[in-house]
Amino acid sequence: MESKNTFNYKMTLAYDGTHYCGWQIQPNGITIQEILQNAIKIILKEEVAIIGSGRTDAGVHAFGQTAHFKHTTEINLYRFQASLNGVLPYDIRVKQIEFVPLDFHAQYSAIGKTYQYHLYLDRVQMPFCRLYSWHVHEKINLELLKEGASLFLGTHDFTSFANEAHAGCAAHDPIRTLKRLDIIPEEGGVCLEVEADGFLYKMVRNIVGTLVEVSSGKRKPSDIPRIFADKDRRLAGFAAPPQGLFLMRVDYP
Amino acid sequence: MESKNTFNYKMTLAYDGTHYCGWQIQPNGITIQEILQNAIKIILKEEVAIIGSGRTDAGVHAFGQTAHFKHTTEINLYRFQASLNGVLPYDIRVKQIEFVPLDFHAQYSAIGKTYQYHLYLDRVQMPFCRLYSWHVHEKINLELLKEGASLFLGTHDFTSFANEAHAGCAAHDPIRTLKRLDIIPEEGGVCLEVEADGFLYKMVRNIVGTLVEVSSGKRKPSDIPRIFADKDRRLAGFAAPPQGLFLMRVDYP
Repeated sequence: MESKNTFNYKMTLAYDGTHYCGWQIQPNGITIQEILQNAIKIILKEEVAIIGSGRTDAGVHAFGQTAHFKHTTEINLYRFQASLNGVLPYDIRVKQIEFVPLDFHAQYSAIGKTYQYHLYLDRVQMPFCRLYSWHVHEKINLELLKEGASLFLGTHDFTSFANEAHAGCAAHDPIRTLKRLDIIPEEGGVCLEVEADGFLYKMVRNIVGTLVEVSSGKRKPSDIPRIFADKDRRLAGFAAPPQGLFLMRVDYP
Repeated sequence: MESKNTFNYKMTLAYDGTHYCGWQIQPNGITIQEILQNAIKIILKEEVAIIGSGRTDAGVHAFGQTAHFKHTTEINLYRFQASLNGVLPYDIRVKQIEFVPLDFHAQYSAIGKTYQYHLYLDRVQMPFCRLYSWHVHEKINLELLKEGASLFLGTHDFTSFANEAHAGCAAHDPIRTLKRLDIIPEEGGVCLEVEADGFLYKMVRNIVGTLVEVSSGKRKPSDIPRIFADKDRRLAGFAAPPQGLFLMRVDYP
């Protein structure tokens, strides 16, 4: 039971996932959730449980991950943010902290998410992009990329594009609605920006891997509807590597 | 004496300086020059001496460093570049290799250089910029920054803005001509782009350090002409940290 004096804090976070084993606490490596909980414990002198909007895998980055935690103390938000950023390593930053209603839940209240995936297409990858993009060596046909991307839009059963979640994660309804899959030209390549009401495990990286196969001529765009229909993960392309992926935004009502 | 069968190779290089002790070979740490020479030795089965356009310090990056080396074999440029990038770590990349006349010298033939320095000014620095910009916590007045920058333009004796070079480096003529010092707004802050016929040791970082003192109100713009006149390094500001600095381009006739 929550007392009257419970406050719910929503944090917006940016992190460079290069040196972490992903978001979620696990026994075999350092995770962002663990580092954050430890930092909050240093400041509040108390354990808190931070709940994120969802996991990000090892090597995946966030520009706008969200998380919430509850605490009985009303904390000065500006000072708390400054203290946290003072304690945290420079590759994890708290962009914002705000009070939210007690029923706000970073994961269950979310109604949409936006990811970016950066494909580096030039022959020589600039070293500053090596941790933040996938250097694709195949020649990419942008028309095929556009055609392939359009076939993912709308409401589908994404079973074929979802890896099995870790043990302990209940299987969810595999129906998702992709609102956008934009192809944005950028220095050295393209950025794929994808927005949906939610994503299954490894869904973005599996879509990107399949799109690279389609746009490099290894598969036909017409394979995509068939892969959807067969609901078999083994039919889709391999997962694109993690370092090109950024969780950009989590939307709430 | 160079035989008729000597070929002069010019390389254009990009590197992330984070993990290196600068460009120039030294006994106490791994440098970019050393890694490059080792990579070339693996491919050509022979020692070569690579001469860069100039040093970059530990932590400083390059988008367009240049270097040359001579060799008696005419090498297929496309394949050589691909092999080198195959052997080099991903934080050092060969962007281009070309044949140049035998009298081309990466350092002595240079007639100009362009550097960028990235100042991160927002309260929270995005983690992806932490290795590529200086997070300035003071409030920066952009009008003062512009006024200060304009006072560096033109031909000056830059003695007050040059650190003493390492032992073994002859003191050079301290007169340099700054052609441009542009202030370009960018995500989170500003980029200072500075072009000159040449730069003294730590000159860009000393100029940037002084400009940050001027634009944060610690000094007056009118201090700058006085610092020039006194020709005393101790009068200028501290050097800005290395990670914001990029060697962008070296110009030749």
